Amino acid sequence: MTVNGNATQNGHHPRATVLDIQQRRAEAGKLLSGIASVGDSSRFRGPPAYQDFKLDHLSSETKLRKPSRLKEAGRLLKGKPDIISVAGGLPPSENFPIENITFNFKNPNLEETNGSLSGDQSHLSATLGKYDTKDGGADYDLSIALNYSQTTGGPQLTRFLTEHSELVLHPPYADWKILLTTGSTGTFETLVRAYLDKERRDSVLTEAYNYSTVLETMRPQGIKVFGVSADDDGLSPSNFDEILSSWDETARGARKPHILYIIPTGQNPTGSTQSIERRREVYAVAQKHDVLIIEDDPYYFLQLGPYEKGGSVAEEPKTPEEFIASLVPSYVSIDVDGRVIRIDSASKVLAPGSRLGWVIGSEEILQNYIRVAELSNQVTNGFSQIIVWKLLETWGHEGYFKWLAKIRKDYTLRRNVLLDVLDNHLPKDLISWIPPSGGMFVWLKLDHSRHPDFPKRSLEEIEQEIFEEAVNQGVLFARGSWFRAEPDIPVENIFFRLSFSTATKEQLTKAVQRLSAAIHKSFGL
Amino acid sequence: MTVNGNATQNGHHPRATVLDIQQRRAEAGKLLSGIASVGDSSRFRGPPAYQDFKLDHLSSETKLRKPSRLKEAGRLLKGKPDIISVAGGLPPSENFPIENITFNFKNPNLEETNGSLSGDQSHLSATLGKYDTKDGGADYDLSIALNYSQTTGGPQLTRFLTEHSELVLHPPYADWKILLTTGSTGTFETLVRAYLDKERRDSVLTEAYNYSTVLETMRPQGIKVFGVSADDDGLSPSNFDEILSSWDETARGARKPHILYIIPTGQNPTGSTQSIERRREVYAVAQKHDVLIIEDDPYYFLQLGPYEKGGSVAEEPKTPEEFIASLVPSYVSIDVDGRVIRIDSASKVLAPGSRLGWVIGSEEILQNYIRVAELSNQVTNGFSQIIVWKLLETWGHEGYFKWLAKIRKDYTLRRNVLLDVLDNHLPKDLISWIPPSGGMFVWLKLDHSRHPDFPKRSLEEIEQEIFEEAVNQGVLFARGSWFRAEPDIPVENIFFRLSFSTATKEQLTKAVQRLSAAIHKSFGL
Repeated sequence: MTVNGNATQNGHHPRATVLDIQQRRAEAGKLLSGIASVGDSSRFRGPPAYQDFKLDHLSSETKLRKPSRLKEAGRLLKGKPDIISVAGGLPPSENFPIENITFNFKNPNLEETNGSLSGDQSHLSATLGKYDTKDGGADYDLSIALNYSQTTGGPQLTRFLTEHSELVLHPPYADWKILLTTGSTGTFETLVRAYLDKERRDSVLTEAYNYSTVLETMRPQGIKVFGVSADDDGLSPSNFDEILSSWDETARGARKPHILYIIPTGQNPTGSTQSIERRREVYAVAQKHDVLIIEDDPYYFLQLGPYEKGGSVAEEPKTPEEFIASLVPSYVSIDVDGRVIRIDSASKVLAPGSRLGWVIGSEEILQNYIRVAELSNQVTNGFSQIIVWKLLETWGHEGYFKWLAKIRKDYTLRRNVLLDVLDNHLPKDLISWIPPSGGMFVWLKLDHSRHPDFPKRSLEEIEQEIFEEAVNQGVLFARGSWFRAEPDIPVENIFFRLSFSTATKEQLTKAVQRLSAAIHKSFGL
Repeated sequence: MTVNGNATQNGHHPRATVLDIQQRRAEAGKLLSGIASVGDSSRFRGPPAYQDFKLDHLSSETKLRKPSRLKEAGRLLKGKPDIISVAGGLPPSENFPIENITFNFKNPNLEETNGSLSGDQSHLSATLGKYDTKDGGADYDLSIALNYSQTTGGPQLTRFLTEHSELVLHPPYADWKILLTTGSTGTFETLVRAYLDKERRDSVLTEAYNYSTVLETMRPQGIKVFGVSADDDGLSPSNFDEILSSWDETARGARKPHILYIIPTGQNPTGSTQSIERRREVYAVAQKHDVLIIEDDPYYFLQLGPYEKGGSVAEEPKTPEEFIASLVPSYVSIDVDGRVIRIDSASKVLAPGSRLGWVIGSEEILQNYIRVAELSNQVTNGFSQIIVWKLLETWGHEGYFKWLAKIRKDYTLRRNVLLDVLDNHLPKDLISWIPPSGGMFVWLKLDHSRHPDFPKRSLEEIEQEIFEEAVNQGVLFARGSWFRAEPDIPVENIFFRLSFSTATKEQLTKAVQRLSAAIHKSFGL
């Protein structure tokens, strides 16, 4: 395709390639960027097809919000090169103590041979100066990154991530855009405040077991959470439909939910990854009931493929297109209405300490997001923005896809190690699990019916006993009950969540042996 | 004094010196620090004197909050060196692409001679490796900083800033501590959510003209703001007392305020700095009515001294103690009850892009702060924490004080330039101002009674006309009406806020000439 290529029959333009992006940049010319430049991502994306759908689900708090006056005043500067601003309290860059930053980083273009990198240059190096834009014609420098910036994030990193998102997600509707964030936790919290209203008795649907931090974010804000059942393929569309179709506001003590929160890939804690068919079914139910979908997808690139004991890991893809084609599409990729809000994060693929993420959605939704964010956590830190920008620009889109493929391979190997260890050391008559094809976690299910104290003691007590004994034995994991969407319902199954992201094979072996010993002790075996 | 020195007669220990801090560190030995270490600042402060006062002003949202389960689970690891954790989804540091960071920064120990630095080394250089703690015995490295960390901030930067705060503020009560934040805007927002409750009809008192972002933060959350009058010495204690003593909940439509928000130094927008006498009077009123004081103090070190036209700038202080003694004490320094929450920021003294700040208060107050923060903006970015830590540790406390003195001198010169320009170019029969002794702003007052359209047209219209004409002429400033604590009350005076922080002398001259032209045009002169 070309950038101006014609729409295909269904109205959706063909997917852009890395080459298209290069061509688009060449045609656009130099990036205009100064202190606190507006980084509107629509400048960096290709032509759209479907029109977006307008939704009205704001919270009362959001309706009361107006653009920040001082930030709006800054916009008056746009297009007036001669105007002098004495409006803001911006420090002069001469007063920033840091003059330049050099950093060394991995080169994803090198092949690994027997565990060590080959090639001329095992590492790349990049330098960021204070006045690179003025002195060297660069797009970004420390005098910009270390000053105040717009809540949306600077145009530099926004451009790369918009292009990256277009390559990977290829959203079908018109006015999609991305905004930089300070990480997924803050992003979700901001969305809750922008779209959910305690006084309207709003509620949210989510998988019956879900990321505890997300659940803990909603409860103190007075937002009720209701669990939708899930199977090996993730959230059940029929149960989702049933809950909404039979909603009784009085019995539930809450308004019919207008938001579904899901982790479709490597679900936390269950490890399941929804197939594309499942996603289409869930999306259709969301359309039927006019529900917004918040897709929290930090593990998107950790799609690990099927597990075979002692089996080998699949070859790394040869091209970006091959890599992208190997991934189950995101909800954004099938979102013809603009009803999906996608939360993306650099935490699992670059580094959590970057506190860098981005959110993707329609213009209308993200406008409200900005209103909340500009008065709270504001913008991604300048060090993070400029270092990650330089890293990604040096790698290029192709290099970044190679990096993502390498990360995926590393986690695949780690998963396989844990699954091998589980297979070798756990009592399979008492514990079962489904090998996860994404993410960082394995979800173990205990057959509590064989516990000698069942049903004399509650499952919560048995879970507690095993957890405490395991900590005594020297292993810490996450208890299943922590993740219940509806903690007031009694525990009906005992689960343990184990992560394979960090520990070595030796540590994983010891950890699983200790867990096994704790289980045996509790069962009196 | 020594670290274990006896209390003085009034129960308050003598102030620590830089030497005391060095001795305390030597006695404490190596800093224990790993991934997601708890950075409790009470480990790093000296012995206290007064006991803190307990207050109960939580919001209903805060009362519903419990510690984050996953973060609490992490605490089980403490003191168990052999335990293996498979609980969290932490990426392994091998998967962070960045291997090391080197940065060059200014050396505050050098003297400036005719505008250029003298000495052997005009810049300092520092390098941060991935495994400096393991390989080199360092306190901090990229494998820690780029992973997840506790909401409180890591122990490394927390230690330096706790010591710095003790040196500068010398809080008199027992359980003061500091927490790292993502900057003042987010800090204030978090405090609003932790301490103010719409359903309880909470309200806040503040200077009648105040930082617009802060006002915009409270309104959408349903918190009413009421203005206290101010004079050249800042907020009026008698008006503060009068408002609280005569509070009528029905007439005001709000509960009697339990929070006072103030910017005591270089107030934004008015530029006033409260004297120590004034602070003591305000504090006494707060005690009388059991009011918490939120002290937002980004300009604390920009205490610029008196202005004399064409006068010289005072000598830089010779020692840290001399520098500290030259500053009006913070409210924390006179806070015997623990009722002050101090918001500190690196934005004006290091760089705004660092999105780094810290909050100081009693243990009890900050516990509630953490409950909100850990589910929203979380923690200061890892790049920022480690780079600023390394910078400050390399400078040392003495070097940092020298840096602060240099920054102060720079802003003093900038203020003097703007005041000279105002004096030369504005029509003094129409505009008046008080030379600010702190901060970044000059607050101009227009004599609207001499405007030909007064009182035919409203002051808001006249302000608008002058503002629009000034933008046409090519100058952007902030309008006084933007900063009204109670925007529903009609505008009673016309003010303009001009910043001297960034523009050059030439730009300031042009800017003021353009403003003058706009005023003349509006007055038909």
